[in-house]
Amino acid sequence: MSAQENQKLFFNLTELVGQLRESRESTHKIRHLGRVRELPSRAELESILTGLFAALFPTHYGRPDLTDDDIDYFVGDVLNVTLKKLAEQVRRGLYFVSQEDLADENQFDQKAKDLTKKFAENLPNIRALIVSDVRAAMSGDPAATSVSEILLCYPGVSATIHYRIAHALHQLGARLLARFISEIAHSKTGVDIHPGAEINEGFFIDHGTGVVIGETAVIGKHVRLYQAVTLGAKRFPADSEGNLIKGQARHPVVEDEVVIYAGATVLGRVTIGARSTIGGNVWLTHSVPPDSNISQAQMLSH
Amino acid sequence: MSAQENQKLFFNLTELVGQLRESRESTHKIRHLGRVRELPSRAELESILTGLFAALFPTHYGRPDLTDDDIDYFVGDVLNVTLKKLAEQVRRGLYFVSQEDLADENQFDQKAKDLTKKFAENLPNIRALIVSDVRAAMSGDPAATSVSEILLCYPGVSATIHYRIAHALHQLGARLLARFISEIAHSKTGVDIHPGAEINEGFFIDHGTGVVIGETAVIGKHVRLYQAVTLGAKRFPADSEGNLIKGQARHPVVEDEVVIYAGATVLGRVTIGARSTIGGNVWLTHSVPPDSNISQAQMLSH
Amino acid sequence: MSAQENQKLFFNLTELVGQLRESRESTHKIRHLGRVRELPSRAELESILTGLFAALFPTHYGRPDLTDDDIDYFVGDVLNVTLKKLAEQVRRGLYFVSQEDLADENQFDQKAKDLTKKFAENLPNIRALIVSDVRAAMSGDPAATSVSEILLCYPGVSATIHYRIAHALHQLGARLLARFISEIAHSKTGVDIHPGAEINEGFFIDHGTGVVIGETAVIGKHVRLYQAVTLGAKRFPADSEGNLIKGQARHPVVEDEVVIYAGATVLGRVTIGARSTIGGNVWLTHSVPPDSNISQAQMLSH
Amino acid sequence: MSAQENQKLFFNLTELVGQLRESRESTHKIRHLGRVRELPSRAELESILTGLFAALFPTHYGRPDLTDDDIDYFVGDVLNVTLKKLAEQVRRGLYFVSQEDLADENQFDQKAKDLTKKFAENLPNIRALIVSDVRAAMSGDPAATSVSEILLCYPGVSATIHYRIAHALHQLGARLLARFISEIAHSKTGVDIHPGAEINEGFFIDHGTGVVIGETAVIGKHVRLYQAVTLGAKRFPADSEGNLIKGQARHPVVEDEVVIYAGATVLGRVTIGARSTIGGNVWLTHSVPPDSNISQAQMLSH
Amino acid sequence: MSAQENQKLFFNLTELVGQLRESRESTHKIRHLGRVRELPSRAELESILTGLFAALFPTHYGRPDLTDDDIDYFVGDVLNVTLKKLAEQVRRGLYFVSQEDLADENQFDQKAKDLTKKFAENLPNIRALIVSDVRAAMSGDPAATSVSEILLCYPGVSATIHYRIAHALHQLGARLLARFISEIAHSKTGVDIHPGAEINEGFFIDHGTGVVIGETAVIGKHVRLYQAVTLGAKRFPADSEGNLIKGQARHPVVEDEVVIYAGATVLGRVTIGARSTIGGNVWLTHSVPPDSNISQAQMLSH
Amino acid sequence: MSAQENQKLFFNLTELVGQLRESRESTHKIRHLGRVRELPSRAELESILTGLFAALFPTHYGRPDLTDDDIDYFVGDVLNVTLKKLAEQVRRGLYFVSQEDLADENQFDQKAKDLTKKFAENLPNIRALIVSDVRAAMSGDPAATSVSEILLCYPGVSATIHYRIAHALHQLGARLLARFISEIAHSKTGVDIHPGAEINEGFFIDHGTGVVIGETAVIGKHVRLYQAVTLGAKRFPADSEGNLIKGQARHPVVEDEVVIYAGATVLGRVTIGARSTIGGNVWLTHSVPPDSNISQAQMLSH
Repeated sequence: MSAQENQKLFFNLTELVGQLRESRESTHKIRHLGRVRELPSRAELESILTGLFAALFPTHYGRPDLTDDDIDYFVGDVLNVTLKKLAEQVRRGLYFVSQEDLADENQFDQKAKDLTKKFAENLPNIRALIVSDVRAAMSGDPAATSVSEILLCYPGVSATIHYRIAHALHQLGARLLARFISEIAHSKTGVDIHPGAEINEGFFIDHGTGVVIGETAVIGKHVRLYQAVTLGAKRFPADSEGNLIKGQARHPVVEDEVVIYAGATVLGRVTIGARSTIGGNVWLTHSVPPDSNISQAQMLSH
Repeated sequence: MSAQENQKLFFNLTELVGQLRESRESTHKIRHLGRVRELPSRAELESILTGLFAALFPTHYGRPDLTDDDIDYFVGDVLNVTLKKLAEQVRRGLYFVSQEDLADENQFDQKAKDLTKKFAENLPNIRALIVSDVRAAMSGDPAATSVSEILLCYPGVSATIHYRIAHALHQLGARLLARFISEIAHSKTGVDIHPGAEINEGFFIDHGTGVVIGETAVIGKHVRLYQAVTLGAKRFPADSEGNLIKGQARHPVVEDEVVIYAGATVLGRVTIGARSTIGGNVWLTHSVPPDSNISQAQMLSH
Repeated sequence: MSAQENQKLFFNLTELVGQLRESRESTHKIRHLGRVRELPSRAELESILTGLFAALFPTHYGRPDLTDDDIDYFVGDVLNVTLKKLAEQVRRGLYFVSQEDLADENQFDQKAKDLTKKFAENLPNIRALIVSDVRAAMSGDPAATSVSEILLCYPGVSATIHYRIAHALHQLGARLLARFISEIAHSKTGVDIHPGAEINEGFFIDHGTGVVIGETAVIGKHVRLYQAVTLGAKRFPADSEGNLIKGQARHPVVEDEVVIYAGATVLGRVTIGARSTIGGNVWLTHSVPPDSNISQAQMLSH
Repeated sequence: MSAQENQKLFFNLTELVGQLRESRESTHKIRHLGRVRELPSRAELESILTGLFAALFPTHYGRPDLTDDDIDYFVGDVLNVTLKKLAEQVRRGLYFVSQEDLADENQFDQKAKDLTKKFAENLPNIRALIVSDVRAAMSGDPAATSVSEILLCYPGVSATIHYRIAHALHQLGARLLARFISEIAHSKTGVDIHPGAEINEGFFIDHGTGVVIGETAVIGKHVRLYQAVTLGAKRFPADSEGNLIKGQARHPVVEDEVVIYAGATVLGRVTIGARSTIGGNVWLTHSVPPDSNISQAQMLSH
Repeated sequence: MSAQENQKLFFNLTELVGQLRESRESTHKIRHLGRVRELPSRAELESILTGLFAALFPTHYGRPDLTDDDIDYFVGDVLNVTLKKLAEQVRRGLYFVSQEDLADENQFDQKAKDLTKKFAENLPNIRALIVSDVRAAMSGDPAATSVSEILLCYPGVSATIHYRIAHALHQLGARLLARFISEIAHSKTGVDIHPGAEINEGFFIDHGTGVVIGETAVIGKHVRLYQAVTLGAKRFPADSEGNLIKGQARHPVVEDEVVIYAGATVLGRVTIGARSTIGGNVWLTHSVPPDSNISQAQMLSH
Repeated sequence: MSAQENQKLFFNLTELVGQLRESRESTHKIRHLGRVRELPSRAELESILTGLFAALFPTHYGRPDLTDDDIDYFVGDVLNVTLKKLAEQVRRGLYFVSQEDLADENQFDQKAKDLTKKFAENLPNIRALIVSDVRAAMSGDPAATSVSEILLCYPGVSATIHYRIAHALHQLGARLLARFISEIAHSKTGVDIHPGAEINEGFFIDHGTGVVIGETAVIGKHVRLYQAVTLGAKRFPADSEGNLIKGQARHPVVEDEVVIYAGATVLGRVTIGARSTIGGNVWLTHSVPPDSNISQAQMLSH
């Protein structure tokens, strides 16, 4: 073998780069052309979530040795760094999905700061909701021994905190970012809550893996779900040309104090009346009145 | 715009810090007051788990190029670092959940070392159990081609190793730590096994996502589960004041050589007799005798 | 307490190292003896996957500010680094599973380069398939607002991209590596697709957690699955000595344009005819003709 | 000791923060008020230098396994990332030292890009100069065995490469950045060359520690210096109010092919004529004609 | 070659470990026996120095985008983390050098906190001294263009800041730590100032490489040094048994407003009178009165 | 501004890449053509040095909490990792400088292992020499308070340890690697000792910055040097064609127990007789007999 051959790569890099460029260009609708619009960064969002968790519960998610003397400095500095980072990601998200002319590019910076400011003002309320969720977990699971165990060891609670943050951003218009956060939560916890869903205080998901809550679901106070519960859509209406109609209310309404056990599937814009219990693995596509007790009939063949 | 304005933040940091402080103080029951008790650290626990996995299976989870000449140095050094770290996290966990007087603070260091010492002595037994689990996987899955594939590519096996470590810590009294480990495993594998559960040798979970095994479940030898199987509680008895009664046996007993297929839900303190087969998606809330074969009746509407 | 005592460790390290060595030696079948064969590295594989994702969709998974002027340099450099790393992991995987004599050790380097070269040549095709999957997601989910949202926020799409890479490697013979990649995808997304499965273009999994697709499954064009769908094996035939027979076709065939809703379980070498709809939580162990509409009968007890 | 006391910090954080704020405010001239002007970042500059070194000598400072097939992708991608980073640091530097009104803030982005573009165009020339320096080292040191040894192991050569980059930036007006780079080089190599100095091709510093070359020094072709040589200013003229007059030519002119041995000190705007040799530890404050041979008289007392 | 041979390391690890153990044991005086006393950690000290620099000059060494609204949170949090880390390193240093009985081990924690508290109280004074040093640099170097350039680009100033911190710790009794800091500064800047030296306000070292200032040197106000100046000891008196007598004043006293040019060496307990100028490369071993102007005679041999 | 323009980079990347390629090709002598020969990696060498320092002095440079029970595991594992890494860098160095034919490429792996094995066998001797150096520092500096202070805070000692390692590699033939290590030491400590120099036991350099010791210097037992001492070459003999003659003895011989004070310069193959003292800043180019006391005459002009 000659030295010259030895110097060659074992694959044809230039040809491959060219083919991938062709592939990108032939599917050009897959990204915006004409200007560079940076997508939000997953790594930055994960860092922002770490910061928000730490600001909300400093000794659980921040530094465990904080005292009354130093905790505000920690919270202040974490918030300062985190909210600046968030504003940049919000800016990216707003700009990316915008249809507007390039001339307006600079406006997104101010829009993002305004949105982030409102989100910041909302943080105390978000914290209050999360505290209600933690208390619901404490009273809802006989295995729970302390608030700290709940904050550290309950994926359903972690998913709910992610949701409360994502929902606040969604309501303020940062929808791509909110979805990205819900996906991060999904990846960590196995719980998939669309940020568009409306969930009231005192919400608890136990175990959690496989729970799916759709975009237009509405959930009352003190609702409890178990793993693998789906609150989904039944069918997707299409317009006359066969395109999906987006944005319609198509997921369940779950009223206050409902409990839904593992594996139950509730589909469509149905209402589960207050204080109802839906049994495990139940398949439900119609509304049930308050105080219903629905369970799967059982068939066994020995 | 004046320079002075430019220097301002785009949100009111001081006000926000104050509101979050108020929120923390108004929910003061959410953390222990009066002394700083550091919580265990997730990052440290993940590092400890990496170390224990490496000490137990050095070429699979440690360094793949180890030989007979150097493997003991690797194992010894990893164990040394890992067990010291573990003792510190055990100390934190014991101290955090303790009700005792401050004067006793120093005792937790010794208690943690004693507990960690016992855990260390137990490691060869833990390894033997895991070997039995790996063999069960090898004989239970036709797609498995080698022990290495099982150790590297089977989330159910990974979850079981985590469980065996967490359970040993749970039995020795490090319950918060054990729960934390089970949550780490859950996050990685989608399998949620409470460290209080008792699981005998030769245990195999295939695929695994969505499996939930409750705190008081008891599982015999050579049991095999598939994804999304729940061994849960049926109801939670409350005392006369409506508070949940904690600690009662409320999860299933699964005897030797039982197989439970995907999505099956077994609830309550029922017994699945030895060698039974529980079909997929079955909903089971009563005991079945040995050698039962339970499957869901099927209803189709074309 | 004497100083000498103080210097001791709080556990018996040497004894423990010895016991673990004994444990390894007594279970010696658990790893290959006689020569050091390094296992593939999970960290390297994760880095390789990051590189392949970035090379395929540079602005979504690589760097979001790339322009027409610089994108090829990025793609070329990422591919160069990534494919060299891949060749080394392929080499490890091939060597590890080989039965061949030591004398042949050096051949694996060339084999791995040849295999990696073929994989590289296949990348444009892989990208085309993924583009078809993304388009299927866009047209299949009313909540989807843009291609970017789909690439960043849909775990089912992420799992599918992982599968397309793993399947290409599996077909070329890098089976251990392919399985390892499918496990990494499973851990991140909750979706477990065996790399041996054959899946045609336009595949979409929504939500995804708990989906299991077995080794010999065959899936047609434009198939859509929801969370917790299992395409599994019904039973595992054993030979006359009770050993599992490996490699037989034992998972479903799903024809073009089938939709399978959340929690449905299809087991065995059955065929779901084209354009059929399988309802949520359905348990199906026989073939159904094209255009079938299968749903679970519902039993409620109020 | 009460629990409340235990929670206190062992120092008074709030008082200390207040005192440091007072200290900053009382020395307010020490930073620009009225607007936030970010300083260049040392970490970013170090990353930029790593990138430029790698782009200039890819196999020595970049990746040692590059071949003709892949080297341009590496160089292109490294340059792309590095020059974008450089433009941002140039922008910071220009803005920071500017006296201009806030309204003009946005102009610095374009100015920085223009400057960086010119710097980029200059890179091939910079490389040619460095190649001449490396060749001078090869012919000037009997201990040198290869070009690679010189690029990897000669701090004087490393300092010269840093200088050539810093000088190019200095000439284009990025003076703060240029000085910052010279300080980074000084810290790494012990050689302190002001970026304002003019140094012709074929420059070689052997050993290097302690060499100081002042802002207005002029050095001809093929000059060789040894460690601890100073080319400094003799005195600093002050104006009538006692303020130093800045910017005057006050450092030596060293003509072509001069050699200056270790520890020699040349001060003031003197000229060392071409081909002169200045001996070790010589103290020189007047000009010498070409072909001079200056050495320290030696006095020994036994 | 047999497989068994292949598994061997290419060196004898066990023998080597044994020999090194023997070597350690035969030189047992080289470390304290009988109890584990952890040495301070260089990495921790570097992190502490980074923190102190950032707390003292937040926009130069911390985060360049801080505003009046957020700067105190940053300073407070950095100080909090840094001073806790410092207390631990002080504890290690005090314990390590102590001669005391093991029974007293716990006292060092409190001692270290007390010492760190005093150091913290001293920080505003330290900052004031450094500001005087920066102003001296600004007025002493015609090449200096701004305070920021001085803080970022002057190794002599960096060395002086390190010295001011180390000296404060030295005075409080943390001598091992103080020396460790001076060595870190030396490594970064080439300037070696013993923390025991006493240096008044307005101190400036230009260029700096090779400056050495001994343990008992005393330096007045507004003194300026150039590179390679030594303020050293002339000889080391030994006692009757030949052991060095430690701690005696043996380095120069340099009075106010003295300037010492590059390469000058001043040895022994001599006094340089106020306002004197010591020329470059001068070798001085006796005192000189105020307003002296000492320079090296020059001998040239053409 | 059109969108298309916006997408362009602000510099011409492709042109620049082309020019740099041309520049590399036109200076092709600057690297080996015809085959890829990877250079040793600075990062790897730094990691190897960290490992060797830790293996030699485990509690000072490794982990400070090691006890008799665990120290051998630490040493064994560190050595194992470090020596394998070293063998790879040795291989690169040997291969890089080789003139041999490609066919022999594989031999360098075995050569490197053999060389590394010998180096490993030499480590106990290296340690013994370093212990003698540390003792010399302890008895030579009145400011030294403990062996630990010397190991942690004396750059001259750090430089000497680096030299002892580099010299051992140099003697075994790994010359490029040895030089690389000496440059790393130089960068950290300001002390430049060529690995070819021969230095006997009990060597001590105080302060150290600016010390230069040439390739063919020979230094006896218990020699002490201060900062900025040069043991250099006087002139470089060239052959009839003007090329430097490499490898001749051209640096001083320093006999036992000599002390050389700061800034002294000794040039050429001269001999400093045993027990001599060379004063600061002395310039010496001829031999002196044993017990000489050389000092610079002093000239002062007031």
